[in-house]
Amino acid sequence: MEELVGLREGSSGSPVSLRELWGPCPRVRRAIRGGLEWLKQKVFRVGEDWYFLMTLGVLMALISYTMNFAIGRVVRAHKWLYREIGDSHLLRYLSWTVYPVALVSFSSGFSQSITPFSGGSGIPELKTMLTGVVLEDYLDIKNFGAKVAGLTCTLAAGSTIFLGKVGPFVHLSVMIAAYLGRVHTKAIGESENKSKQNEMLVVAAAVGVATVFAAPFSGILFSIEVMSSHFSVWDYWRGFFAATCGAFMFRLLSVFNSEQETITSLYKTNFRVDVPFDLPEIFFFVALGAICGIVSCAYLFCQRTFLGFVKTNQLISKLLATSKPLYAALAALILASITYPPGVGRFLASRLSMKQHLDSLFDNHSWALMTRNSSPPWPKELDPQNLWFEWYHPRFTIFGTLAFFLVMKFWMLILATTIPIPAGYFMPIFIFGAGIGRLIGEALALAFPEGIVAGGVTNPIMPGGYALAGAAAFSGAVTHTISTALLAFELTGQIVHALPVLMAVLAANAIAQSCQPSFYDGTIIVKKLPYLPWIRGRKISSHRVIVEHFMNCAITTLAKDAPLEEVARVVTSTDLAKYFLVESTESQILVGTVGREELVQALRAEPSSWTPGHPCLRDLLAGGCPIEPVTLQLSPETSLHQAHNLFELLKLQSLPVTSLGRAVGSVSWVELKKAISSLTNPPAPK
Amino acid sequence: MEELVGLREGSSGSPVSLRELWGPCPRVRRAIRGGLEWLKQKVFRVGEDWYFLMTLGVLMALISYTMNFAIGRVVRAHKWLYREIGDSHLLRYLSWTVYPVALVSFSSGFSQSITPFSGGSGIPELKTMLTGVVLEDYLDIKNFGAKVAGLTCTLAAGSTIFLGKVGPFVHLSVMIAAYLGRVHTKAIGESENKSKQNEMLVVAAAVGVATVFAAPFSGILFSIEVMSSHFSVWDYWRGFFAATCGAFMFRLLSVFNSEQETITSLYKTNFRVDVPFDLPEIFFFVALGAICGIVSCAYLFCQRTFLGFVKTNQLISKLLATSKPLYAALAALILASITYPPGVGRFLASRLSMKQHLDSLFDNHSWALMTRNSSPPWPKELDPQNLWFEWYHPRFTIFGTLAFFLVMKFWMLILATTIPIPAGYFMPIFIFGAGIGRLIGEALALAFPEGIVAGGVTNPIMPGGYALAGAAAFSGAVTHTISTALLAFELTGQIVHALPVLMAVLAANAIAQSCQPSFYDGTIIVKKLPYLPWIRGRKISSHRVIVEHFMNCAITTLAKDAPLEEVARVVTSTDLAKYFLVESTESQILVGTVGREELVQALRAEPSSWTPGHPCLRDLLAGGCPIEPVTLQLSPETSLHQAHNLFELLKLQSLPVTSLGRAVGSVSWVELKKAISSLTNPPAPK
Repeated sequence: MEELVGLREGSSGSPVSLRELWGPCPRVRRAIRGGLEWLKQKVFRVGEDWYFLMTLGVLMALISYTMNFAIGRVVRAHKWLYREIGDSHLLRYLSWTVYPVALVSFSSGFSQSITPFSGGSGIPELKTMLTGVVLEDYLDIKNFGAKVAGLTCTLAAGSTIFLGKVGPFVHLSVMIAAYLGRVHTKAIGESENKSKQNEMLVVAAAVGVATVFAAPFSGILFSIEVMSSHFSVWDYWRGFFAATCGAFMFRLLSVFNSEQETITSLYKTNFRVDVPFDLPEIFFFVALGAICGIVSCAYLFCQRTFLGFVKTNQLISKLLATSKPLYAALAALILASITYPPGVGRFLASRLSMKQHLDSLFDNHSWALMTRNSSPPWPKELDPQNLWFEWYHPRFTIFGTLAFFLVMKFWMLILATTIPIPAGYFMPIFIFGAGIGRLIGEALALAFPEGIVAGGVTNPIMPGGYALAGAAAFSGAVTHTISTALLAFELTGQIVHALPVLMAVLAANAIAQSCQPSFYDGTIIVKKLPYLPWIRGRKISSHRVIVEHFMNCAITTLAKDAPLEEVARVVTSTDLAKYFLVESTESQILVGTVGREELVQALRAEPSSWTPGHPCLRDLLAGGCPIEPVTLQLSPETSLHQAHNLFELLKLQSLPVTSLGRAVGSVSWVELKKAISSLTNPPAPK
Repeated sequence: MEELVGLREGSSGSPVSLRELWGPCPRVRRAIRGGLEWLKQKVFRVGEDWYFLMTLGVLMALISYTMNFAIGRVVRAHKWLYREIGDSHLLRYLSWTVYPVALVSFSSGFSQSITPFSGGSGIPELKTMLTGVVLEDYLDIKNFGAKVAGLTCTLAAGSTIFLGKVGPFVHLSVMIAAYLGRVHTKAIGESENKSKQNEMLVVAAAVGVATVFAAPFSGILFSIEVMSSHFSVWDYWRGFFAATCGAFMFRLLSVFNSEQETITSLYKTNFRVDVPFDLPEIFFFVALGAICGIVSCAYLFCQRTFLGFVKTNQLISKLLATSKPLYAALAALILASITYPPGVGRFLASRLSMKQHLDSLFDNHSWALMTRNSSPPWPKELDPQNLWFEWYHPRFTIFGTLAFFLVMKFWMLILATTIPIPAGYFMPIFIFGAGIGRLIGEALALAFPEGIVAGGVTNPIMPGGYALAGAAAFSGAVTHTISTALLAFELTGQIVHALPVLMAVLAANAIAQSCQPSFYDGTIIVKKLPYLPWIRGRKISSHRVIVEHFMNCAITTLAKDAPLEEVARVVTSTDLAKYFLVESTESQILVGTVGREELVQALRAEPSSWTPGHPCLRDLLAGGCPIEPVTLQLSPETSLHQAHNLFELLKLQSLPVTSLGRAVGSVSWVELKKAISSLTNPPAPK
C-alpha cells in the first residue's frame, strides 16, 4: 500500500499518465488519501495493545462456544442412550454411571499425563503469580491442550459430577494471553517486560470469566476481587474492553447458531417488575445472606479439612500418587451411583443439567403454593416446559427434596473438589446457594401466601428472588467477593432485586470473611503456595509498627574488598539466590546485588587468581560478574503499611533496608507475614 | 453494662441473693450471658469502622432525601405561581424568570460569602486531594452549610438552570466523613492518620454518588474511576457497604413517605424484554457511541475554552471578582428567558423537570411512529401521563425539537457551568446524551418502521434504548468513565441492553480519551490545581526511562558539619519547605530531612551560638531541632514506571534519590510530569 502510494505520487511528477488524467479532482483525491493515511496511523497508534486484547477476547469466546457445543452433543448422546436402553435397571444403571466414570477418569489420566498443573481451577495459582511469585511452566502453552481436553470431559459428565467451568477458563485465558504476549514481543523484537505481563494477567482473567458467563461487568470485577488486592483503573478499562469483546462474540455465536433470536442473558428470568418484593422482605433477604454466610463457613471449613485429610491419609495419598485415574473413577462412581435417577437421584433432581438446575431454581412461581392443593406425578421423562416437576416428590414435597439436595450436595461437592481433574468450583457453589435461597423462599411463600403487606393488590412472595439472592450470597461468601451480586443480575438479565441481593451478599461476606479464608485462599494454604496476608482490621496501632521492628537483621553481605577465599566460603556456606554487595567491609554501604550463580561462574572461571596476592571481590566484578542495581530500598523507619503496600503494588519478593546508606537488614514476605500475624495475635507484652 | 455484669458475678460469690435463687438454671443463664458478651465483643471488634461507614451512609441519605423533599416543595410553588398568575405575558414571563434568577443569585451570594470553596462540583479538588495534595480548609465542616443551602437553591431553580447534584454531594459526603473521622479520633484519643483519611475519602465519594442515584454499584465504581488511578479491594468493599446503607436508606425514606410501594429504581423503564433489540442494531449502538464521543470532544473543548475565556476576559473576570451574584443573576436571566415556555422554551421541552426529561426520553414508544399519521396538539398544561407531548411540535416534528434542544443546551450548559454556585454537572450531561440517543433512535425507528430483521414477529426499534445508550455513552465520554453504563442500568432497573450500551460507552470513551482530557481533568487544568499525569499508551520504550534521566540534580543539602552561617545563608537564600540533611559535606550521606520552619526557629532561639568558635548544624540539631527520617528513597536506576506507581499509590509529593547512600537528587511531581510529557512528545534526538 505504502509502495503503491509512493508510485502514484512519483508519477505525478513525471509526465501526466493516463490514469492521472482520467480521475477527476486529483487534489481532492490526494486530500482524501492523506486523510485515510492519517486515520490509519491514528488507529494503529491507539491500536496495537487493543488489537491484542480484542484477539484474546474473540479467541476465548470461540473456545468457550466450541466447548459448549461439543459438550452439548456428548450430553445429548448420553441422554439418548439412557432413554433408549430399555427398562432393565442394571442396563440403565450402567448406562448412567459408566459414562461419567469413563469421562472423568479419562480427563484425569489425560490431563495429568501431560502436565500436573492442569488439575483444579487454577485460580489459586494465578493469584499467587499475580503477587509476583514465578511458577515455572504454569502458563506454558502445552498445558493448554491438557486443560481443554480435560475440562471438556469433566463438563461432559454433566450434573452427575456437578463441576463448573470458570476457574479453568481463567487459566486458559491467561495461558493464551501469555502465549500471545510472547509472540507479540518476539514479533516486534523487544525484550519481555514483567510489569506488562502482570497487566495482561488481570485482563486475561477478566476475559476468562466474561466468556463463560457472557457478563463483562461482573467478569472484570470478580477477577479483580479474587485475584488482587490493589488494581489500577488502567487495567480495569483494558479488562472491560477485552471482556466486552469476548462476551459479545460468545453471545453472537449462539445467535448465529440460531439458538437465540438476539443477544440476551444466559439464564433469563421473568420476575414481576412492578413490585418485585414487599419492603419487609428486605429483612428476610438479609437473614438469608446471614444463613448463606454461616453455611459457607461450614463448607469452607469442611472442604479445607477434607483436602488436608486427602493429602495426609496414607491410603488415599498413595492412591493419588500412583493412580490418579483410579481415584477419579472411584469418586465418579460414588457420585454417579447416588445421582442415579430411579434411585436416590430422584430426590436430587439429578436428571436436570446444571443450566436447568439454575433455570428451574430461578423460576418465578412458587412451587409450594402450586403443589399445596394438587400434586403432579413424578414424570417418567424430563419435561422441558416444567423443569420444576423434578424438584417435587409427592411424599417428601419440594421442601424435602430441596433439603435433601442441599445436604447431599454439600459433601458430594467436597468430594468432587478432590478429584484431580481440570474443573471449576464456582458454578456448583452458585447453584448450591440458589438451592438454599429457594428453600427459604418457598418456606416464606407458604408462610405468607398472600404476600407480606396485605392490601388491595397482594404481591405474593417470589421464591425465585430468594434463589437469586442465595446464589449470589453463597458464592460471594465462599469466594469472598461482592461482585457475585452483579453477576446474578447480568446472568438473569433483570436487576429488580438490586438492593436486597446486595444486602444479602454483604451480610454473607461479613460472616464468611471474619471466620474463614476464602475458597481460593484456603486452597493456597492447603497447597502451601506462597502468599502475602492482608493487614486486617486496619487498627490504628498497626500504623505504628515500623520496619525496624520486624526486619531480618541477619543478612549476608559481600564487601567489595573481601578476599576471594571469603567470597567462596560465603557462597558455599549459604544458599541465597542473591547477595547484597557493599562497598567495603568497614563502611557496609549498599552498592547492589550479585546473583549467586554469576558469582559461582566467575569464581570458577578465574582459578588463576586464587594464587596469593590477595585478589578481592572487586577484581572478580571487574572481570565481568554483573552487579544488579538496587532500585528501591526501605529505611528502618518505614511503616509496616507502607512496606506492605510496596510489596503488593510492585509485586516484590524482598527489599533491602538501609540506614545512612549502610545495609542493615532485609524485608521479605517471611518477615512481613510474621509482622502481620503478630498484629492480630500480639505477642506477650515485653 | 460491664459494671452490671461485674456486680452480678460478684454477687454469686457472696451469700446467695434472693434474685439468684429465684431465677431457674443459673448455669444456663450464665452461659447465655457469656455468649451474648462474646457476640457483643465480636460485633464491636468487627464494628467500629463499620458503624462509622453506616452512619455516613445513613446521614447522607437523610440529607439527600430532605433536600429532594425541600426542592420538590419549592418547585411545586413555582409551578403553581406560574399557572395561577393569569394570561398576561409579562406577568408570566416575570414569574418564570424572577424565581430562578433570585434563587441562583442567592445561592451564589450566600455560598460565596461563607467560603469561596463552595462553588462548582468539588470533584476536581477532591481528585487533587486524593493524590496527596493538602488543600487547607477544603473539607472544613463550615463549608457544609454553604454548600447545602447553595445547592438546594441551585436545584430548586429546576430545569431552567439545568444543573445537577452529584458533584456537590460527593463533596458534602467527604466533608461529613472528615468531620466524623475527626470526632472519632478525638473520642478514642488517637493521633490523626493520613492513610486512614485517604481510605475514607474514596469511600465517602462513593456514598455521595450512591445516595444521589440510589445506585451502590455504579456509585462505587464511578467514584473510583473519577477519583483515583489505583485502588485497593479493601476500600472497594468498605465503599460497597457504605454505599448500600446510603442507597437503601434513601429509597426507604421514599417508601415511608408513600411515594412508592416498594424499593425500586429511580427512573424505571418498561423496555420490551424478550427481544429488546435486533442483532444488527448493535452496529447502530456502536455508531451512536462514536457520535457521542465526537460530540463530547467538542463539548469538552468548548467548555474548557469558555472557562478560560471567562477567566481571562477583563470585563467578566472583573464582574466575577467584585460581584459574583450579579454575574450569576445575569446568566440565570439569559437561561430563564430562553426557556420561557411560550417563547423558545416551547421547542426545548422546558416545562419538564430534569427527572421528567429523563423519564420521557427513556419512553419505550417511538414518538416518530406515533406522530407519523396523527399530530397531537401542543398541550396548554403539562400532561403527566404523556410527558412526551412536550417534545412534539406540529411544524418542527420531534426531530426539530430534539435537534434544537441539543444545539441550545450545548452552549447553555457551558454557560451554566461558569456560574459560581454549588452545582453538579453530571446529570445535565446525562440528559444531553439521552437526547442525542433519542434523536438517533427516532430516526432509526422512522427508517425501519418494521424493525430491522423482518420475519414472522417484527420487533420495532425502541428509541428509548438508544436514549439509554446515548446517556451512558455521552456522560461516560465526558467524565472518562465506563461505569456510567452500569449506572444507566441501575437507574432504570433494566439490564436488557447490557452489551449494546457497554459497547457504545467503550466506543465513546475510545474517542474522548484519545482526544480530550476529562471534564474533571479539564477543570483541574483550568483551575491550575496540581496533578500527576498518567503514563499513557504504556509503550515499551517508556519502561527504559530511569530516575537518573529526569531527577532534579540541583538539590540543596545541609551537612551536619556545616557552620551555622552557612545554614543561615542557605535558609535565607532558598524557600524550600524541607532540606535534605547529610552526614557531612564530604560524604553527602543522607540522614533525613529538616523542616525549614524548625530550622529558622532553632536559629533564632540560639543567637548566643553565633559567637566565634564555629558552632555547626550538629549543635543546632542536638539542641532540639527535629530530624524527620526518610522512610523511602529512590535509586538512580529506579524506572519511571516504578517511581510513578510509588507516587500514586503512596500519595507522595517528593522523594530523595540516593546512590550509595549519598543524596544525589530528588524527584517530585514536577520532574515526573516533565518525564511523562517528554515520553509522549519526545525531545529532538541528541
